[in-house]
Amino acid sequence: MTKVSEISEFDLIARLEAVLEQNVTPNAESKIQVAIGDDAAVIGNLDNLQVVTTDAMVDKVHFVSNEVDMRNLGWKSLAVNYSDIASMGCKPVYSVVTLGLRTDILVEQLENLYLGFSDLLNLYGGELVGGDIVKSDTFFISVTVVGSTDKSETMQRKTAVPGDVIAVTGALGCSNAGLKFLLNNNLEKSSHFYEAHYLPKPRIYEGINLLDMGIKTGIDISDGLLNDLKKICAASSVNATINLDSIPVHEELKLSFPDNFREMAVSGGEDYELLITGHESLIKYISDSTKMDLHIVGEIEIGSGNVNAVDNSGAQISITTGGWDHFTEN
Amino acid sequence: MTKVSEISEFDLIARLEAVLEQNVTPNAESKIQVAIGDDAAVIGNLDNLQVVTTDAMVDKVHFVSNEVDMRNLGWKSLAVNYSDIASMGCKPVYSVVTLGLRTDILVEQLENLYLGFSDLLNLYGGELVGGDIVKSDTFFISVTVVGSTDKSETMQRKTAVPGDVIAVTGALGCSNAGLKFLLNNNLEKSSHFYEAHYLPKPRIYEGINLLDMGIKTGIDISDGLLNDLKKICAASSVNATINLDSIPVHEELKLSFPDNFREMAVSGGEDYELLITGHESLIKYISDSTKMDLHIVGEIEIGSGNVNAVDNSGAQISITTGGWDHFTEN
Repeated sequence: MTKVSEISEFDLIARLEAVLEQNVTPNAESKIQVAIGDDAAVIGNLDNLQVVTTDAMVDKVHFVSNEVDMRNLGWKSLAVNYSDIASMGCKPVYSVVTLGLRTDILVEQLENLYLGFSDLLNLYGGELVGGDIVKSDTFFISVTVVGSTDKSETMQRKTAVPGDVIAVTGALGCSNAGLKFLLNNNLEKSSHFYEAHYLPKPRIYEGINLLDMGIKTGIDISDGLLNDLKKICAASSVNATINLDSIPVHEELKLSFPDNFREMAVSGGEDYELLITGHESLIKYISDSTKMDLHIVGEIEIGSGNVNAVDNSGAQISITTGGWDHFTEN
Repeated sequence: MTKVSEISEFDLIARLEAVLEQNVTPNAESKIQVAIGDDAAVIGNLDNLQVVTTDAMVDKVHFVSNEVDMRNLGWKSLAVNYSDIASMGCKPVYSVVTLGLRTDILVEQLENLYLGFSDLLNLYGGELVGGDIVKSDTFFISVTVVGSTDKSETMQRKTAVPGDVIAVTGALGCSNAGLKFLLNNNLEKSSHFYEAHYLPKPRIYEGINLLDMGIKTGIDISDGLLNDLKKICAASSVNATINLDSIPVHEELKLSFPDNFREMAVSGGEDYELLITGHESLIKYISDSTKMDLHIVGEIEIGSGNVNAVDNSGAQISITTGGWDHFTEN
């Protein structure tokens, strides 16, 4: 075992680069002309449009470095960025990663982190082309991903119109369940909730498919269904009504949280599923003609940014959004 | 005054976005189709090649948050990335910024930070299209910049060949002088050294010009002339000899440090000038035909990565590189 304080930055980068070389399947069509080892990476022309997103994960805020499996952390810190690329209907093309490192962190831990990156790159494509390593009293990982599409527009938040239905991919709430078990020191590695919390699957292929088939409006569910739907409503100047009984929920979530699985599904956060809107006929066509796990959960209405909830009987349900707001303390 | 803990993240981003709106001259030819306010920015096709670089600045490592002028910090944290884009001969196109924030940091401080970004964007172009704000026990700023060129290649490190001469833009060592005064609590705001240390000028226009006129090999001087020249020598498998008497040094540096201005100029670091190699005739032609402040300081020779130093008499000089290595403690 080697502490980062016992190795030069050059050697550290070389070791991390070696992890990628040994674990990432080479891309024969790569347009990366210069990657790690120069001041900046060089990328040949992307396709028609490119998108960029950046998200950081910080020790004691998003994870606890002494407890987290670094391979999971690598996966998740890149996956949450990939999810943003997916929400635009784009494919990931390249990423850069900045690590803020305490000197007591082990090189082997960072190699595991890069294995997590590798796992994701192998499954969803794109290349990690560089980054920066700095010393920091607080361990952090800052990731930037550039994606592209050959379409003339990406999915966005501002294009929802009254009459659209609202749909989500996958089932919601299981990442939140994982967090609850984690906070009670009761999260088993083999459980579905562990995977939902630590290894979220960015919906890259679904996003590309949805844009390709004509969906204009999308966001990823990182802050909870209600919070992210509110962002669509605000950007599009519309209202939304969600049918709580139609929200897809995993059987294990119902079994483990029979009293509040609905609340967890609408406001839990970190699901990284896609939330889209579109004509009901189009969404049903996509659902019928692809294997996509797509569920209609509500509709867009005339309004100015509000989200309402009903149940199957049509009765209005009062809901609180929960969700994240990192700075407001009261 | 408002602490970040007293304002929502949404409001904070809106305030920071407002600083940009109010301070950055709009670019009529902007290809940015979606900027702040969606999951990811959308950028129209760039030119022939694009480059990406990322560099972070961390409290207590690169600056001291209680002492630094945040507007200077904004300038510098973006400028060091722009310098990497300049070293490739590219123009900056777009940037994203991640802030890791302690809750006691003031919104007004961050607005000043963004004023520093604005100053640089106005002078050197490019757009700040998004980012992320996270809570962190350690304040940090992580910046990613994407640049482009319509040339078929960028400047690189690996293209130096024996017979090339070595040249630098500008004068060296003044940023290091600024740091020395700063560490002695003796750095005056009006001094040349203050500006050299806090407000380095990325050589964007020089870099574009140099690539345009046929220079193949370049790097920016962030770790000191000798250290960065070593990187060129290692990447190109060549040796280099520097004439210490030919290194451009500011008169004030000679006056303030008569005994060690040469050492500061070759190993001080953070000058953010460009270090290039090329045919002597080409470099003299560029120097004569442009207003660029370009100085020949040595030559490239057959070898395997070593850098030597001589004085005007041709006598070999023993030099230590100093420079940065963030993690090795002994």
